[in-house]
Amino acid sequence: MNAHVITIGDEILIGQTINTNAAFIGEQLSNISINVRKTSVVPDDEEVILKEFKACLDDNDVVIVTGGLGPTHDDITRKCVIKFFHTELIPNQEVLEDVKNFFKKRGRKITKINEDQALVPKIAEAIRNSRGTAPGMWIEKENKVFAALPGVPHEMSEMIRSFIIPRLQEKIPEKDFYVKRINLLTTGIPESTLFERLGDLDELLKGAKLAFLPSQFGVKLRITVQDKDEERANNIISEIEQKIRSKVGRYIFSHQDENLENVVARILTERELTISVAESCTGGLISNMLTNISGSSKFYERGIITYSNASKVELLKVNEDTLSKYGAVSLEVARQMAEGIRAISGTDLGLAVTGIMGPTGASVDKPVGLVCIGFCDDKVCTAKKFLFGEDRLLNKQRTAQAALEMVRRSLLGIPFDD
Amino acid sequence: MNAHVITIGDEILIGQTINTNAAFIGEQLSNISINVRKTSVVPDDEEVILKEFKACLDDNDVVIVTGGLGPTHDDITRKCVIKFFHTELIPNQEVLEDVKNFFKKRGRKITKINEDQALVPKIAEAIRNSRGTAPGMWIEKENKVFAALPGVPHEMSEMIRSFIIPRLQEKIPEKDFYVKRINLLTTGIPESTLFERLGDLDELLKGAKLAFLPSQFGVKLRITVQDKDEERANNIISEIEQKIRSKVGRYIFSHQDENLENVVARILTERELTISVAESCTGGLISNMLTNISGSSKFYERGIITYSNASKVELLKVNEDTLSKYGAVSLEVARQMAEGIRAISGTDLGLAVTGIMGPTGASVDKPVGLVCIGFCDDKVCTAKKFLFGEDRLLNKQRTAQAALEMVRRSLLGIPFDD
Repeated sequence: MNAHVITIGDEILIGQTINTNAAFIGEQLSNISINVRKTSVVPDDEEVILKEFKACLDDNDVVIVTGGLGPTHDDITRKCVIKFFHTELIPNQEVLEDVKNFFKKRGRKITKINEDQALVPKIAEAIRNSRGTAPGMWIEKENKVFAALPGVPHEMSEMIRSFIIPRLQEKIPEKDFYVKRINLLTTGIPESTLFERLGDLDELLKGAKLAFLPSQFGVKLRITVQDKDEERANNIISEIEQKIRSKVGRYIFSHQDENLENVVARILTERELTISVAESCTGGLISNMLTNISGSSKFYERGIITYSNASKVELLKVNEDTLSKYGAVSLEVARQMAEGIRAISGTDLGLAVTGIMGPTGASVDKPVGLVCIGFCDDKVCTAKKFLFGEDRLLNKQRTAQAALEMVRRSLLGIPFDD
Repeated sequence: MNAHVITIGDEILIGQTINTNAAFIGEQLSNISINVRKTSVVPDDEEVILKEFKACLDDNDVVIVTGGLGPTHDDITRKCVIKFFHTELIPNQEVLEDVKNFFKKRGRKITKINEDQALVPKIAEAIRNSRGTAPGMWIEKENKVFAALPGVPHEMSEMIRSFIIPRLQEKIPEKDFYVKRINLLTTGIPESTLFERLGDLDELLKGAKLAFLPSQFGVKLRITVQDKDEERANNIISEIEQKIRSKVGRYIFSHQDENLENVVARILTERELTISVAESCTGGLISNMLTNISGSSKFYERGIITYSNASKVELLKVNEDTLSKYGAVSLEVARQMAEGIRAISGTDLGLAVTGIMGPTGASVDKPVGLVCIGFCDDKVCTAKKFLFGEDRLLNKQRTAQAALEMVRRSLLGIPFDD
């Protein structure tokens, strides 16, 4: 089954909103082996939208549309659906109750334009919205599926998970071949070095596909195998994974699409260890990443963001002489910060970062991108130096990633130096 | 001039990477009044790519492609360009020097596949890459522009800013009409309430366009005016802005696409005020947002993430009796946290948040989404209660936004209660 995802909205085209919806839908469809052949973004323009509906339905089995279903005048998707399928709007009692309850629960007064959201095209089955007011639409015609969903990401994603995916799964024909994929997530090694260390790819892959996907979090290796036999496909994938691991295994932190903070959190939780974090240059990013994880209070105790030198001395007991002798961005200060946060928090592990994120703050011997990361547990207290790039936000993310990688390596007994 | 942006890569289609490149390019092109009519994402598949090149060049004056220019075997864009334009690869000496310097500067050994990146299609002008190794390509043919750029966001964005935009600006014909846009960014008011308060839109807009764009950060109001006379277009926009301000002005935090943390940071810096932040439920997010701003050390002194109750008492001097009487998520504790962080940091302002982000942690009278935000300056020490939704990450972002909005309102003398 082939699919096309259409995102509607001027705000996406002119870059005021990033298209996370297409990514989410692409992932969900791929997970059930529906082939997303193309995605597109079109403006809030009836003519363009109708043309795109036609072109996509001609070429695909499934078309999913998001956006333009809100209550205000600039939301025109419903109008386009009516025109395209030559149908009309009829009131839907269930949806009207949903909308009324939504407002009641929040203690807000319902408005006329919200009530109108309970009008649904006659040809469509309404997809109820548990997180907002605009219902989605599910239309089946001539063996094709057309679905329209609101553009608000958490409303759309709930409808995809609870309605669209189960319905599509019922329609997927018996498989004549299997596509298996695995992602090996690496960090701390550049793309070209990784490529070199893997050696002869034809020899390694024997017909399978391997993609290198670099980002500020590291390089993702995506292996794809197609085979008529499901078990054989799985065997080929795990054979390739083992070969890759034998060459660059220490850099691989996940083969299950877990991000690094989740990997670290899982190990800490399993071993009942706690961590505290002292951040200077990352300004709270590391703590924010760790506390994005549900259940983080089990392993995350506290964090201190010591942006000023005074706060490093007062809160973390960093030695003032060390600060003035080596400067705030130094291995010595990073080590003392890690020691300090661990001591005052009474946690098993202490992590600390200090660096120059740019664009300002550099000196002759300390360029933008220079970072020192300190780490202490009950056995060692150490620090490591890094040189990242010139972009402030990327530097914050790379620093956080490198710091979490130090924790992972320490927990798994992998040496810090690569 | 019409443009189409093509993003190449399976990882985008299957949702493993979010398409931020198309958003960035869409924004940059719109800023110089180039009309982005559509964007699309296609797989790493030669046939599909070549078909898309053709369709887009037929319909548009400008086609910008990103992705698939890396050094590894799965990068096929350059190959497609050669086929499409019936040209060949030739070595480019400047680019080769760039690549060699790139590796030298980082102290890394250059590899053969990196050297090959200095091969550029004969028909193209090479776009040099100051942040990576893959050059871009600029091709002009039959009055149309075709450009291909690497997919790594910070490499692509630099090439767009320093090469593509200036070149395109030279080609833009004299304008026969002007499109003026302004975004009024609101927070703390739901979309439908905003819509109601604005009253009769036809009366308000008189032919101009108004879009409502909701997100977890608030509702963006985008006003668009087209007119043959530039000054008149500007006047119409500012008239509409004034009318909207007279109705919902207190909720508008920016008309210049500044996010809320930037607005707060700017006011703090202008008034030479400092702030410290105590976070429980947001786990560092507020501090992270504030320190994303270059120059934040001028106003941001320190932050403490008191995830455990012990840390609230030890570091912020929250009263243990208050904690056990009212619980950690209460107006009283939020107020004491704000008072505590302000006192130990010696800053002008103190901000504190405590809440239940979910999915766990709720009790009978304290549901997921309940948040208390405390704020203190030299005159007041107050706290306010909020009830957000059920999604952990959205709750963190909404809490951070509401907290920063309390700071903004306090700085501008707007009452906290709406």
